[in-house]
Amino acid sequence: MSYTVKRYKKENDESYTLGTTLTIELLKYKPEKTKIVLLHSQIDGEGGKRIVELCEKNGIPYETNDKAFNILSQKENCFAIGVFEKFEERINPDTDHIVLVNPSNSGNLGTIIRSSLGFGMRDLAIITPAVDVFDPKTVRSSMGAVFSLRISHYSTFNEYIQSVSKRNCYPFMLQAKFSLDKAEFVRPASLVFGNESSGLPDNFLKVGDPVIIKHTDSIDSLNLPTAVGIALYKFTEGKF
Amino acid sequence: MSYTVKRYKKENDESYTLGTTLTIELLKYKPEKTKIVLLHSQIDGEGGKRIVELCEKNGIPYETNDKAFNILSQKENCFAIGVFEKFEERINPDTDHIVLVNPSNSGNLGTIIRSSLGFGMRDLAIITPAVDVFDPKTVRSSMGAVFSLRISHYSTFNEYIQSVSKRNCYPFMLQAKFSLDKAEFVRPASLVFGNESSGLPDNFLKVGDPVIIKHTDSIDSLNLPTAVGIALYKFTEGKF
Repeated sequence: MSYTVKRYKKENDESYTLGTTLTIELLKYKPEKTKIVLLHSQIDGEGGKRIVELCEKNGIPYETNDKAFNILSQKENCFAIGVFEKFEERINPDTDHIVLVNPSNSGNLGTIIRSSLGFGMRDLAIITPAVDVFDPKTVRSSMGAVFSLRISHYSTFNEYIQSVSKRNCYPFMLQAKFSLDKAEFVRPASLVFGNESSGLPDNFLKVGDPVIIKHTDSIDSLNLPTAVGIALYKFTEGKF
Repeated sequence: MSYTVKRYKKENDESYTLGTTLTIELLKYKPEKTKIVLLHSQIDGEGGKRIVELCEKNGIPYETNDKAFNILSQKENCFAIGVFEKFEERINPDTDHIVLVNPSNSGNLGTIIRSSLGFGMRDLAIITPAVDVFDPKTVRSSMGAVFSLRISHYSTFNEYIQSVSKRNCYPFMLQAKFSLDKAEFVRPASLVFGNESSGLPDNFLKVGDPVIIKHTDSIDSLNLPTAVGIALYKFTEGKF
């Protein structure tokens, strides 16, 4: 009998990696969360072989199941689907963190996760409401980095602050006076970013040391993943 | 008689701004390219009023045309469509430039255009093949910045170099040895970036001074708009 997949929904307990590379990332970093891998009959030899190896090594079932691809993937070049249980990890309370307040775009969230791993920031706090970190779109734009970060959710920023060690917060805000090029970060640090449309509420001006990435007034704001990428670059400048 | 729109295609001579804010940007910065504005009968008073004012000021026709929205917009919150002629502008040969070699993702291209305008780089060279800068998805992710940059297309990098003033080129490549945090840019400069998947070909290692944005080896590369954003930030650091 073949595995029955459901169309992705935020409230479901399981989600999917759509594509061979992403499925391999899942199997490498979160085999214990992988329920089953579904293969398309037309998967190429090398990718398929690697997936089967990883499944057998970890005791994870796999099957050929073309029907699942009709339900889950509109892309023609998707030949493997990893079915995994969503999970929550506890961030390390003592390290540097990225904090996202109410992120609302799944592709953006994945791009931020990719940059975060790229610059060695492995702890991400998300203040809800927020998009699902395991939305297949987020998983894809993270390029699988979502399986390598520790990500925790909090219902308020205060709840987050109370659950981590004493630290210096740097809210990134257009209303801030202090420019990123002059910032001297004291660690452990939390780099805090608001929602794509609304940014951080004004009360964050009283939280730690607000920072602005200055730009011309020809645009209203930078794209959120671009702003986070610049902040991460500057925060870790010279480290790599 | 109402204006008949066609579904967007790259090869068509006209394209569209989907949404009130984008349509206002079009009317502000490129009224001479605007053929007509189509309004939805449910557009809100303020946005509609501003659009009508700009159309009347510039002698641009407008009409209520709900049918066009069924054809062009899947979004529920789109109530204005600007129909414009695509155009090509000549970049200023003497200024700093962003050069994109074979960009292949329309959303990414728009995000780069937005960052470029944000950091005051108004000249963008695109080496073809490339996605259409006037794809409605590019226009949207640029937040209308596409109407404020000068953008020229070239069929090869050599053709670009021959048409602009002598300059220092900085190709951004993972194979480069020189790290961005140590770069000292000499102007006029061209910041050069490759395709999303393949990056710049190896022969760019012999073009000017190749630069790398160093990151951990936990990821293969940064997302392209993030890399361009970081480069732009660093190139203009302290200027704004």
